[in-house]
Amino acid sequence: MVKKVLLAVGALLLLMPAALAFADDPKPPEPGQLQAAVDAVWVMLAAILVIFMQAGFALLEAGSTRMKNAGHVAGKTILTFGICALAFWALGFGLAFGNGNPFFGTTGFVLTGLEDQAKAAFSSLAGSDVPISIKFLFQLAFAGVSLAIAWGGFAERGKLPVYFIFGVLFTVLIYPIVAHWVWGGGWLAQIGMQDFAGSTVVHLQGATAALVATLLLKPRIGKFNKDGTPNLIPGHNQVLSVLGVIILWIGWFGFNPGSTLSAMNDGFFGYIALTTNMAAAAGGVAAMIVSWMYFGKADIPSMLNGVLAALVAITAACAFVEPWAAIVIGALAGIITFFTAQWFEKWGLDDPVYAFSVHGIAGIWGTLSTGFFATSELATRAGGGTPVGGAGLFYGGGFHQLGVQALGVAGAFVFVFVLSFIILGILKATIGLRVTEEEEIVGLDLSEHGSYGYPEQMKKLQGQSNVTA
Amino acid sequence: MVKKVLLAVGALLLLMPAALAFADDPKPPEPGQLQAAVDAVWVMLAAILVIFMQAGFALLEAGSTRMKNAGHVAGKTILTFGICALAFWALGFGLAFGNGNPFFGTTGFVLTGLEDQAKAAFSSLAGSDVPISIKFLFQLAFAGVSLAIAWGGFAERGKLPVYFIFGVLFTVLIYPIVAHWVWGGGWLAQIGMQDFAGSTVVHLQGATAALVATLLLKPRIGKFNKDGTPNLIPGHNQVLSVLGVIILWIGWFGFNPGSTLSAMNDGFFGYIALTTNMAAAAGGVAAMIVSWMYFGKADIPSMLNGVLAALVAITAACAFVEPWAAIVIGALAGIITFFTAQWFEKWGLDDPVYAFSVHGIAGIWGTLSTGFFATSELATRAGGGTPVGGAGLFYGGGFHQLGVQALGVAGAFVFVFVLSFIILGILKATIGLRVTEEEEIVGLDLSEHGSYGYPEQMKKLQGQSNVTA
Amino acid sequence: MVKKVLLAVGALLLLMPAALAFADDPKPPEPGQLQAAVDAVWVMLAAILVIFMQAGFALLEAGSTRMKNAGHVAGKTILTFGICALAFWALGFGLAFGNGNPFFGTTGFVLTGLEDQAKAAFSSLAGSDVPISIKFLFQLAFAGVSLAIAWGGFAERGKLPVYFIFGVLFTVLIYPIVAHWVWGGGWLAQIGMQDFAGSTVVHLQGATAALVATLLLKPRIGKFNKDGTPNLIPGHNQVLSVLGVIILWIGWFGFNPGSTLSAMNDGFFGYIALTTNMAAAAGGVAAMIVSWMYFGKADIPSMLNGVLAALVAITAACAFVEPWAAIVIGALAGIITFFTAQWFEKWGLDDPVYAFSVHGIAGIWGTLSTGFFATSELATRAGGGTPVGGAGLFYGGGFHQLGVQALGVAGAFVFVFVLSFIILGILKATIGLRVTEEEEIVGLDLSEHGSYGYPEQMKKLQGQSNVTA
Repeated sequence: MVKKVLLAVGALLLLMPAALAFADDPKPPEPGQLQAAVDAVWVMLAAILVIFMQAGFALLEAGSTRMKNAGHVAGKTILTFGICALAFWALGFGLAFGNGNPFFGTTGFVLTGLEDQAKAAFSSLAGSDVPISIKFLFQLAFAGVSLAIAWGGFAERGKLPVYFIFGVLFTVLIYPIVAHWVWGGGWLAQIGMQDFAGSTVVHLQGATAALVATLLLKPRIGKFNKDGTPNLIPGHNQVLSVLGVIILWIGWFGFNPGSTLSAMNDGFFGYIALTTNMAAAAGGVAAMIVSWMYFGKADIPSMLNGVLAALVAITAACAFVEPWAAIVIGALAGIITFFTAQWFEKWGLDDPVYAFSVHGIAGIWGTLSTGFFATSELATRAGGGTPVGGAGLFYGGGFHQLGVQALGVAGAFVFVFVLSFIILGILKATIGLRVTEEEEIVGLDLSEHGSYGYPEQMKKLQGQSNVTA
Repeated sequence: MVKKVLLAVGALLLLMPAALAFADDPKPPEPGQLQAAVDAVWVMLAAILVIFMQAGFALLEAGSTRMKNAGHVAGKTILTFGICALAFWALGFGLAFGNGNPFFGTTGFVLTGLEDQAKAAFSSLAGSDVPISIKFLFQLAFAGVSLAIAWGGFAERGKLPVYFIFGVLFTVLIYPIVAHWVWGGGWLAQIGMQDFAGSTVVHLQGATAALVATLLLKPRIGKFNKDGTPNLIPGHNQVLSVLGVIILWIGWFGFNPGSTLSAMNDGFFGYIALTTNMAAAAGGVAAMIVSWMYFGKADIPSMLNGVLAALVAITAACAFVEPWAAIVIGALAGIITFFTAQWFEKWGLDDPVYAFSVHGIAGIWGTLSTGFFATSELATRAGGGTPVGGAGLFYGGGFHQLGVQALGVAGAFVFVFVLSFIILGILKATIGLRVTEEEEIVGLDLSEHGSYGYPEQMKKLQGQSNVTA
Repeated sequence: MVKKVLLAVGALLLLMPAALAFADDPKPPEPGQLQAAVDAVWVMLAAILVIFMQAGFALLEAGSTRMKNAGHVAGKTILTFGICALAFWALGFGLAFGNGNPFFGTTGFVLTGLEDQAKAAFSSLAGSDVPISIKFLFQLAFAGVSLAIAWGGFAERGKLPVYFIFGVLFTVLIYPIVAHWVWGGGWLAQIGMQDFAGSTVVHLQGATAALVATLLLKPRIGKFNKDGTPNLIPGHNQVLSVLGVIILWIGWFGFNPGSTLSAMNDGFFGYIALTTNMAAAAGGVAAMIVSWMYFGKADIPSMLNGVLAALVAITAACAFVEPWAAIVIGALAGIITFFTAQWFEKWGLDDPVYAFSVHGIAGIWGTLSTGFFATSELATRAGGGTPVGGAGLFYGGGFHQLGVQALGVAGAFVFVFVLSFIILGILKATIGLRVTEEEEIVGLDLSEHGSYGYPEQMKKLQGQSNVTA
């Protein structure tokens, strides 16, 4: 081998061409090309930020659950994002954004033949000059977030095979349908639903699937006493949860502002980043204060949920409302989520990472909020000149937009609830959704993966408490 | 509800409009619009990176303190960034960057009416075409960093209510004033102070508040023996600290290069990224070697402090000095900080996360360093054609610039020290700054938030050592 | 001091100039300037993402090793990136990208005088209008990744001084030479080797050095039984490993798409991001399934390795192959790496973090893969009009490109193996590569740095097991 290399090198020295890469005299680019490049860089950045949110979910969910499940919880995030990517490429993206009917798209599977027709290919994305590859990554990132939210309902007791099967089915049968309704030129788009970056499309969908999982899987062992009173099962690592939430906050600067799909429009993406940030700040502070008043202690997980609930709520509204309204929407989201989380627990629901409170309730509130706070001017700017829906109740629009928003919420919720119930119901009846009692006690790290996420620390724990593995 | 949806769907199928979003024939954008878009994307990216630094501070500070305080330390980072965002929006930004007098701004509160006058609104930011929303987020990120630094002085013994109150007051009474002096067209701007991204404005300010807190709060229980000799209270997790420092390093690529507020100027932001990176590298390596020579062991926390000290120091100088000078500035920052950290401890100061050494001493050194190393050419480029200050001592500028820098450092230090002392002194005399002795021993996670950050691990610790909670 | 400030302030109030920063009437920028700005922002973003990969390596490596070494493993990542930055600035960058001969560059050391000749300065980077400072940072990030990979072979037993010495020598004697061959207009560039972002240049190089270290350092204590059968030494924290892998995945969106060094070319960087993402998804899913079939348990570390192996493999091919081929390349990389990792262990090699399997074997497979899957059209697009190599075997190119790729792999492997063997052999014979047996048992945190990375947890561990420190 060495000899071969030396021979080749010798030959090359003799034959070495005089010229290397001549940088061709570049002709100046057209303004349209430049705009396309700026827009592409911006949406690529946004896609990267939203994909990075998978780290946020992995950390938040792992930090909010117990040590014996930590490796599983974190690891399945990557696994299911991988599954989602393959399924969304094959089918989901076309179903969501392909041309078709008001209910689903029928073109663009496996992204075939779309590279050269970035603008024309997809109805709902046609207004942006961003290459189809980047549009795909951006939308995949959204589907991946919705799926990550759904897993919250399975935490600490779901069986690994279910992650494979439901991961595929959610990505091709559930998510893209509602995405098409709202963003793919479907029936909700046509009646002017305002859901700029997906309080309903992304968050309520994932949360509704999580709710179904919560209902079908039943509470974790030890969550409720015989008299129905709940026990606290604290997450094992608040530092990881905090890091997860900061990553999600950061990721939301891709999520919401990136949904402009353009960096032009006089910096509208910056305006959206502003409303997003103000809502998050208000939600965290409000939830912290409420938890302090309610518990007598300023509860950190409650504050983290408040930040996230506010971000979920402003996701629909970010482009349609003024900064002061964003603060109100965010603060109310933080407060509402705090109380609904308490209520769900009292009602016997065990939602270990608060998926339905944080993403479902706040998703509903956020979607409805534009019915109150949207301004005509911003609705027009959000549509790049063509209004997306109309003004809300407080800005002279009457109850019309509120009705549209409510219809969208109801439609999405019912569709996702029913379909998730059918799919997970069938899985429950066949392969089963939940690990055995023994496996749950030992933890999913051992039962599903054969090794602890924290082997050295778990061994110590066992040494002390004689847990059998 | 289902029925309603089905009816709506039926109606829509009948009425479905033939046309969806017609992409309007776009007319080519103007060069000025394109430049604005590129600049906006760049500064938005920078703002995101700097906001991400909150994760860096949360991890570094949590990693550098004990397990019983970890949830509190990490969680309060998000809480206080939220508080800062609301207060900076309401008042701070206007006081810092509004038009006004040489001491503070008097316009632009709650960002009112500024969306359409991005260029004209604010004196000091007028030279950039970036939308006001993004300028606000970028500057908010800076205020948030300064506040995060200040909290270092409260670590492991500060009371939660103080975080609310001092968080607001620092954001509206302290930070924006000095920011106005240097970046808002105030008196230090007028005499040509060189502080490109805030060695003084951001770091020295936060560190001075931290120093005051350190003085007023007194050392942690167990830090000093009766004879005054210090004990080591090691942080509980160096991996988190390392991750925090890498996130901060990355964040600094927004902090310094983003302070160009533009991507034009022949890629000057890239030049600044280069000097920033070289300084950080030199600071870490120098501090590691010094600690090895001094302790006989290559101490990791010392190296991490070296990286940060170098980044703090190059923050003022990044736009004004050559790469070799950046290396010298960074290496010296790492070394100076190493020794001052030792001295402060010997003098009886307990600064748990080295806030004043890393951000204060290195902030002073960095601000002074341009008085030695600034070149005329770079000072002109930094100002976009109009020089910001003049050359340093080693480049033929004599002692003038060094005097200006020293005046700036002294002015900022005195102002922040006095104001912080008054505010925190009043708080100490009224609600108190510090938790009780019992609470401190139990840890702030329990005392301030009612639950451990690491509940499973702390329970084990208690089992072994019979700590009472 | 206060008096001085007040005097200065008073004087300024009297003398206050009427005018502050007049925003000069900006003349509209040229299209070429705008393109340069967009390209610079894009490559700066990419450089930041790739530098952030250091966090990914720190976390992955720390998570995959034991608690007693965690501080060392994480901390040395920052230290050696610092060393690499200084050495690459002084010598490495010029050797790699300077004008010179087919084997190494001879200009551009310490980046001297290059600021004004960004385009002309460096042969291989001449086609891009990105400022030299950003090109340097981007290429430094690559060198830093290669070095981080090399350290994998030293894990849990390497001596600290070796990190200093080999860090410098790898950065100036090894990495830049091969980089010059392929990307600096060297002999492999001239015969049309296809290695778009460095399956060979970055990954195989680092992995080969790691292999040499593995061979010279010998297995960790306790890894193999007397009969040669291996024991599992599990990493201590899968959550950190997962976070590390997500950061690396994200970083790869800078690594591969950023290697376009431009945001123009009709969004080609987006296309590359797409192939990169699809490969990663396929690699993770494939490795998880294979590990499930092989072990009976879906092993999380195996899945993480699958993701990384796929990313390593697609690094060469990302610009030359279609999305379906990217999926095949990624899936095969995940599977191949899974089995080679098992084989190496059976053969008595102790590669603690699988550096050679993941970066070496997958690097080879990825480099060869373009010999099968490259299309002429994409090879032309990758070169910006001038083809980089030709079509692969499956696209009518015959065996030619496969031969070129094999020659490149062989040349790089032999060169790095031999040079690393010489350097590390000399170090072994002189200062020694490995800590003492006692130090290894105690852990590198104590032996090399004098303090545990997890002091509170390690103290507990000692309490239980009577480990002597």
